Amino acid sequence: MSGDNQIRIGLITCKNIVRKLSRAINLSLNATISAIATTSSIEEAKSFTKSNNFPPNTKIHSSYESLLEDPDVDAVYFPIPTRLHLEWAVRAARKGKHILLDKPVALNVSEFDQIVEACAVNGVQFMDGTQWMHNPRTYKIKEFVNDLESFGLTKTVHSCFSFAANEDFLKHDIRVKPGLDGLGALGDAGWYTIQAILLANDFKLPKTVAALPGFVLNDAGIVLACGALFNWEEGISGTIYCSFLANLTMEITAIGTKGTLRVHDFVIPYRETEAAFTTSARGCVSEHKVMTELPQEACMVIEFARLVGEIKYRGAKPDGFWLSISRKTQLLVDAVKESIDNNLEPVFLSGR
Amino acid sequence: MSGDNQIRIGLITCKNIVRKLSRAINLSLNATISAIATTSSIEEAKSFTKSNNFPPNTKIHSSYESLLEDPDVDAVYFPIPTRLHLEWAVRAARKGKHILLDKPVALNVSEFDQIVEACAVNGVQFMDGTQWMHNPRTYKIKEFVNDLESFGLTKTVHSCFSFAANEDFLKHDIRVKPGLDGLGALGDAGWYTIQAILLANDFKLPKTVAALPGFVLNDAGIVLACGALFNWEEGISGTIYCSFLANLTMEITAIGTKGTLRVHDFVIPYRETEAAFTTSARGCVSEHKVMTELPQEACMVIEFARLVGEIKYRGAKPDGFWLSISRKTQLLVDAVKESIDNNLEPVFLSGR
Repeated sequence: MSGDNQIRIGLITCKNIVRKLSRAINLSLNATISAIATTSSIEEAKSFTKSNNFPPNTKIHSSYESLLEDPDVDAVYFPIPTRLHLEWAVRAARKGKHILLDKPVALNVSEFDQIVEACAVNGVQFMDGTQWMHNPRTYKIKEFVNDLESFGLTKTVHSCFSFAANEDFLKHDIRVKPGLDGLGALGDAGWYTIQAILLANDFKLPKTVAALPGFVLNDAGIVLACGALFNWEEGISGTIYCSFLANLTMEITAIGTKGTLRVHDFVIPYRETEAAFTTSARGCVSEHKVMTELPQEACMVIEFARLVGEIKYRGAKPDGFWLSISRKTQLLVDAVKESIDNNLEPVFLSGR
Repeated sequence: MSGDNQIRIGLITCKNIVRKLSRAINLSLNATISAIATTSSIEEAKSFTKSNNFPPNTKIHSSYESLLEDPDVDAVYFPIPTRLHLEWAVRAARKGKHILLDKPVALNVSEFDQIVEACAVNGVQFMDGTQWMHNPRTYKIKEFVNDLESFGLTKTVHSCFSFAANEDFLKHDIRVKPGLDGLGALGDAGWYTIQAILLANDFKLPKTVAALPGFVLNDAGIVLACGALFNWEEGISGTIYCSFLANLTMEITAIGTKGTLRVHDFVIPYRETEAAFTTSARGCVSEHKVMTELPQEACMVIEFARLVGEIKYRGAKPDGFWLSISRKTQLLVDAVKESIDNNLEPVFLSGR
């Protein structure tokens, strides 16, 4: 698919944050950038589109609303603070635009459910912008942990994602501001670790969730670091650790009855063109390398544009898989937050 | 040191469990096997000492008591069920024998304190038989996590040790029997993980300990799998997972403000002659290999015999370092058990 059949993506904002994704769209044969909305000057936006190799005919809108009215936009990407997700995702859905939304998808799952409903009513595709889920390595990892012969049944999984934010980040970044991304390190780094433990449990929701003692909040009550425990059936557990206050670490260790999985760079692979993981099974330790022709963010755009293309050109219905993963992840993020807010009481997920 | 100056070790029991350690003693120039005590027939014991290359003049005692009376025994190694540790370690100390005792060192810390007292009164050296602590790699790991420049301050550490025990083990091994090693997977596999998280915190005791929901007990109430959380100052945490029910996994992941440590085979290195670990610091991932001329169990025997030699030949006092690590580990094992027995209530360690 190329040329006329490409899915035309509009970018809401022309801040630096879209650079990585705009490169990914440029690398994706089935997608193209058709428009951008800016709240700064048109001149600045022009120079931004040029320096980032946007197609020369990229339209520049001076408001988000105007971009959503543009008939040359099939889908929108929203790298905006979480607090604005509900409003703008619902508006986009009502205009029939397919949605690629950054994580966390909302401030809580009830907000997200309003987005889900707007997508359903308007028949638009939803996907959250978690890139590692689309790395070819992730499919291989999934294959291994679902393999009853090599991995067996999942017994426990531990995942951590931390990075040592600098002083400026800890003072000014939207991820430490209650009015913007109120979920802090939990909604940011924690999001990935929760997906990792879900993946090791075939995306089955746990029965209970409890935050662990020792979490760190900033003066505004935003989570800077925390751990949490997840329990499925008896003897099946998962733990996460997420932090803005510790050295960059991106680990998954999943242990089954017969095998063990280890990944050291699951969120952002050390290399763009290959990604590794280690398995132990039957007493044998194996290093696996998965070649990736395209960076994982391009794999994500291709998958998104493919699903949108199914709807646009073949009359398919929106695919619910990625949306269901987003919802489960948000539900667990919420549960950890609820436990933190309730003196670390466990949260029972039955019926949620 | 060799020949006459070697520390003469007596082995209590001639079961298969002493094979590994007897080989280690044979590899240690400063130690030798001088006697063995058996409860089976003298003929069987003779054939055992021969097939395991014990020195030809190894004495065979038909009772533990008789070995403890032997003036040609400086020190004893006890691979006997935990329930018998208190009695036999105290008896050995009273006979002036130095003590190398398997882990867990006792059924609880108050029992252990009686052993400690007997050692102090009789001026004998104590060391527990946890071999990985003596691997040259462990010293390198300790160096890294204590390095404020490369690792910074410890923020979190996760350690797991699991192996999938077979049906026979789960029915008959002493480690699943309340009358023998009543601490189950916690006293066995958990012991190592607790040492690992202590090591990452410079052997400082945490303030609180709590077992995590989802532990598994057998019908006799013995722990087959469990997790636990340890908290130091605000924002400094450790988690462990130990199990007889999951694939062989031996991990340490320690995250500091500036660096990360990863070890994948910390209990028993994949190779006897070299041991690896990975560090990340300043954005750079490094693989380290530590050459080990002797297996870690021989390093342990050499260290033990060195300390005994200091006492025997140079009038030194017993060294308290290893004993203090044993006590802290036992204290934390006890605390996890206490939390399991008390509906997962956290245990406060202040004053213990």
